[in-house]
Amino acid sequence: MRIRLDLSYDGTDFSGWAIQPALRTVQGTLEDTLATTLRLPSVRVVCAGRTDAGVHARGQVVHLDVEPDLLVTAAGRSKQPLLESLVRRLNGLLPPDVRVRRAVAAEPGFDARYSATSRRYTYRIADRPDLVDPLLRRHVLAWPRPLDVEAMNVASTPLLGLQDFASFCRRRAGATTVRTLLELSWTRTPAGLVEARVVADAFCHTMVRSLVGCLLVVGEGRQPPEWVADLLTGRTRHSSMRVARPHGLTLEEVRYPEGDELSAQAERARALRELV
Amino acid sequence: MRIRLDLSYDGTDFSGWAIQPALRTVQGTLEDTLATTLRLPSVRVVCAGRTDAGVHARGQVVHLDVEPDLLVTAAGRSKQPLLESLVRRLNGLLPPDVRVRRAVAAEPGFDARYSATSRRYTYRIADRPDLVDPLLRRHVLAWPRPLDVEAMNVASTPLLGLQDFASFCRRRAGATTVRTLLELSWTRTPAGLVEARVVADAFCHTMVRSLVGCLLVVGEGRQPPEWVADLLTGRTRHSSMRVARPHGLTLEEVRYPEGDELSAQAERARALRELV
Repeated sequence: MRIRLDLSYDGTDFSGWAIQPALRTVQGTLEDTLATTLRLPSVRVVCAGRTDAGVHARGQVVHLDVEPDLLVTAAGRSKQPLLESLVRRLNGLLPPDVRVRRAVAAEPGFDARYSATSRRYTYRIADRPDLVDPLLRRHVLAWPRPLDVEAMNVASTPLLGLQDFASFCRRRAGATTVRTLLELSWTRTPAGLVEARVVADAFCHTMVRSLVGCLLVVGEGRQPPEWVADLLTGRTRHSSMRVARPHGLTLEEVRYPEGDELSAQAERARALRELV
Repeated sequence: MRIRLDLSYDGTDFSGWAIQPALRTVQGTLEDTLATTLRLPSVRVVCAGRTDAGVHARGQVVHLDVEPDLLVTAAGRSKQPLLESLVRRLNGLLPPDVRVRRAVAAEPGFDARYSATSRRYTYRIADRPDLVDPLLRRHVLAWPRPLDVEAMNVASTPLLGLQDFASFCRRRAGATTVRTLLELSWTRTPAGLVEARVVADAFCHTMVRSLVGCLLVVGEGRQPPEWVADLLTGRTRHSSMRVARPHGLTLEEVRYPEGDELSAQAERARALRELV
């Protein structure tokens, strides 16, 4: 059976999501804990968004395939439903900077990566000294100068839609840089923080942080709003690129379609991937 | 001149507010940094709420007395107003778990401790596994069982007003345990957390954490709401006392009266202190 796990993590002390030899990664930590819990030599999980080092998640989604018998064995004498027992046992073994929020039997056709229709990230900034909260310092960027949220919104609008975001992506062999940016909007929260809400079908490597980094330049008034659209269309030299620090960024939510659309979406996403 | 500083800190890695030899305390860290910045052999500050080890603050208030000339010297060539420059320099030297939010010239008669008319604390709890957020784990208590917020409110109401809170206070020689509890209310936030808002003229040692600890027992349904009022009036044995863990607790705000009332309030508070 396929299980869907919803995860949160504080990325501060991880070298990102993806497993790497000799480094502490979220994937490595989760897979090791699953292997211990399920009494398997190894477990492999597939995730919706491979977050970079220092990036956090509140809504990461992964799937894994497991023999139902192993869940029964793992639950031991627990009288809880099998998947609730799995969540409790995983959280008992995981370090406090990773939590499993829930485990459910995946619907037919579900693939954490390929069935996803969109990913939503938030980037959080405290742009005044009195807004810098030590309790939130691990996931809110402290910015030393005030930001003009309206200018940042004006600069963000032309980036929406289906575009080639090559200017904002670190190149990876064979990976497309064409993405549909569904939302990129800035607000000042009631608490006074500046927050970006960024939604796309998918993101290429460092895309959110590069967008935010350039929009910070506009927010400070050091470039006009149209400068960011010029970067997108390649009219400005690539060396102007700024990549915002990872710790302000959190993967908040991954969206999936309903029912039959799960496998149809996965087929489309796999086909698109093979074309590039 | 007397300066008022407003502070925030993450209490996780501090042995509380009050200075202690060979331990990392907020007071010690702040006083050392002030001494460096003002080029003095030592500086002494007075605070509004002496938080215990592991307790946080977003609205701690302190005062210190300083020769105005020292501020001019400390500012160096900065063109900022003197107190803005002081904030910037202090934050440049302080560790990231303490921030000075602002510095202002204190009004006549102001005393951070004795002029205060009330202190407000928040205690935050995540009472379901899917609410436990690793990004907030340093200041939100993870509680393994669901809490009945309504029962906790019913249990809290009889505690309000002028009472002897001796049952809920760790004894300190010469300190009164008579306090006016102005508010003790529980809510479930939009994000699903359980939050207590606790306001009193002042608190005795471990008072908030003892109140919360006992109300958790009621919230779980292991004791009826009237059990907490019975503890207050001493009708239940003191060994039933529960002290909630410190990390869920944050000092949010200290209130002061206006103008002439600052010194009048300070005189009253000092007189009350001398009576006990």
